[in-house]
Amino acid sequence: MTDAYTTIRVARHDLERFMDAALAQRGADDASRDAVIRALVTASRWGTDSHGLRLLPHYLEELAGGRINPRPQLRFTRRLPATGQLDADHAIGHLAGYTAMAHAVEMAREMGIGAVAVANSSHYGAAGCYALAAAEQGMLGLTVSNSDPFVLLHHGERAFHGTNPIAFAAPVVGGNPYVFDMATSSIPWNRVQQYGAIGRQLPDQVAANAAGGVTRTPGEVAALLPLGGSEFGFKGAGLGGLAEILSSTLSGMLNGFRLLPMVGDDMATPRGVSHFFLAINPAGFIDLEHFQQRLGDYLADLRSQPGVADAEVLAPGDREWRCMAQRDAEGIPLDTANREAYAELAERLGIGALTPL
Amino acid sequence: MTDAYTTIRVARHDLERFMDAALAQRGADDASRDAVIRALVTASRWGTDSHGLRLLPHYLEELAGGRINPRPQLRFTRRLPATGQLDADHAIGHLAGYTAMAHAVEMAREMGIGAVAVANSSHYGAAGCYALAAAEQGMLGLTVSNSDPFVLLHHGERAFHGTNPIAFAAPVVGGNPYVFDMATSSIPWNRVQQYGAIGRQLPDQVAANAAGGVTRTPGEVAALLPLGGSEFGFKGAGLGGLAEILSSTLSGMLNGFRLLPMVGDDMATPRGVSHFFLAINPAGFIDLEHFQQRLGDYLADLRSQPGVADAEVLAPGDREWRCMAQRDAEGIPLDTANREAYAELAERLGIGALTPL
Repeated sequence: MTDAYTTIRVARHDLERFMDAALAQRGADDASRDAVIRALVTASRWGTDSHGLRLLPHYLEELAGGRINPRPQLRFTRRLPATGQLDADHAIGHLAGYTAMAHAVEMAREMGIGAVAVANSSHYGAAGCYALAAAEQGMLGLTVSNSDPFVLLHHGERAFHGTNPIAFAAPVVGGNPYVFDMATSSIPWNRVQQYGAIGRQLPDQVAANAAGGVTRTPGEVAALLPLGGSEFGFKGAGLGGLAEILSSTLSGMLNGFRLLPMVGDDMATPRGVSHFFLAINPAGFIDLEHFQQRLGDYLADLRSQPGVADAEVLAPGDREWRCMAQRDAEGIPLDTANREAYAELAERLGIGALTPL
Repeated sequence: MTDAYTTIRVARHDLERFMDAALAQRGADDASRDAVIRALVTASRWGTDSHGLRLLPHYLEELAGGRINPRPQLRFTRRLPATGQLDADHAIGHLAGYTAMAHAVEMAREMGIGAVAVANSSHYGAAGCYALAAAEQGMLGLTVSNSDPFVLLHHGERAFHGTNPIAFAAPVVGGNPYVFDMATSSIPWNRVQQYGAIGRQLPDQVAANAAGGVTRTPGEVAALLPLGGSEFGFKGAGLGGLAEILSSTLSGMLNGFRLLPMVGDDMATPRGVSHFFLAINPAGFIDLEHFQQRLGDYLADLRSQPGVADAEVLAPGDREWRCMAQRDAEGIPLDTANREAYAELAERLGIGALTPL
């Protein structure tokens, strides 16, 4: 999405250097900085620009305001052999996410499956990052999260669920992991803003006005429709509910409808976002070799399907891994808005500016 | 859906008597009969008519043809403390489903979570039945299944995934469980046939012709679109893939694209359908009382949302539980086609006919 506005590209190590210095300026400890950088840079390399470097200024603002704890004491309680709760102590969500998935993976290694509900967290960025973290350890990974209200219920008049993401990953021998990451709305909120900025009509059945009616005019949008639109949105809304129940109910937190907004005036009060993480050990079901054979066969069948017109049929993640290879070679792009935001940060925080490639 | 064609209503016990006698005529053992009846009658009482009593003649045909084993020896292997595989020995899918979820629940009670992949099964009907079975035991339940190809991949030209369902349920104190059950296409295949029979156009973005292009004409439909349609179908297709990987890859079976069709000439060869079952013990994450409080708060928030126009905002399952109460009071309806099919079965198998209420 960024390429039309690209003004500079930067090297990954330069971006990481910048993020580390900026987060350190706001008091974030080593573990928090590492987690934020890992998640944001993964998202930017994948081309998931809505959840990449764009969000650094927001997280810095949250740290400055105090609603995120820069030096959290995360406490994991393993209540039963394969499950537990992580109290994230209002850590930045990326640290909560990687920590929780690591516990889930550790339990799955021993028990076949492991699950962790996370309380007292904050926005964790791209859900796919944590599913990937499980796949990198040879596990299937699944994560969901709640978030503040942006999406209508089916037949609802106002926003209730967040865009509550669902991400799922699987390890593939000799290739990049399979990574699927979706919001339970059709489009993300920032797409509405992007379309508004360029005066473009939205697709049909993705957004609603203040009365809950479908609209294609960005300026009228008060909420997103759940995936499936006005006719089949009970599916998207139900998936949002699945994410909500696994996240907030299992962790004992408030549901998303009662969360403070991610972007709002109050940067001091912790929001209490919650998440859920699941790691599945294939060896708990079948011999690993057989698992990998079947997964390989499935992906080969999928990728060899004929596409309509000139379209290519891809597996989830294929596009992102290609983008990563390209950006690792050519640099990570910053559009005008991000270039300006990073220049402003450099000046305000006294950090060496990014070096355009 | 049936009410427009209803000609008779029957009592639940009469329907169960009929099903039991018919299945016994085809050699199905006690456990198989009980499972089929439990699932079909639950679906019919819920109003999920596509997966209710309508399917009995199909299952009888499969038993007669030999592709379903009427007296299977199911073998569960608990490979790690919280996970295992069930080889269903070509049982009818409902027996495989209830058996697998019972194993998952048993492991979850002890370990906090339990998961079972099922190999060598067959069509298991309404996925929600097995999620419900977990909720009836105080667990969150989740199940997915693969099935034979009916749904396009995103940008795909021909059917690849089945309608691969996802069902999720949660126990609610003092009320019916929360039950969410969706296919990963927008509409089921039999909706195409129903619309064709009454000469009605399909909704937009739900079905495709033989070239993979969107069509609204039932007679032209060669495949269903994944949930999200031609623009956002990567979401529905990805959810179908999640169901596929958890089902066939974890159980070591062929993926859905390679399955024999559910409805076809070959009723002798076992199809090798696969499923996945997950039971989550809330006590593995949080005190049960706190869990129930939060779930109650969430559902109260959801149900009190204002609806557009005169619409009511419902939680998943609300409509089905209402239908069940009504059908338990008034009887279960059979439309003309089902009434004729059951009359024909009664005559052919020498079973006492259903008694209309």
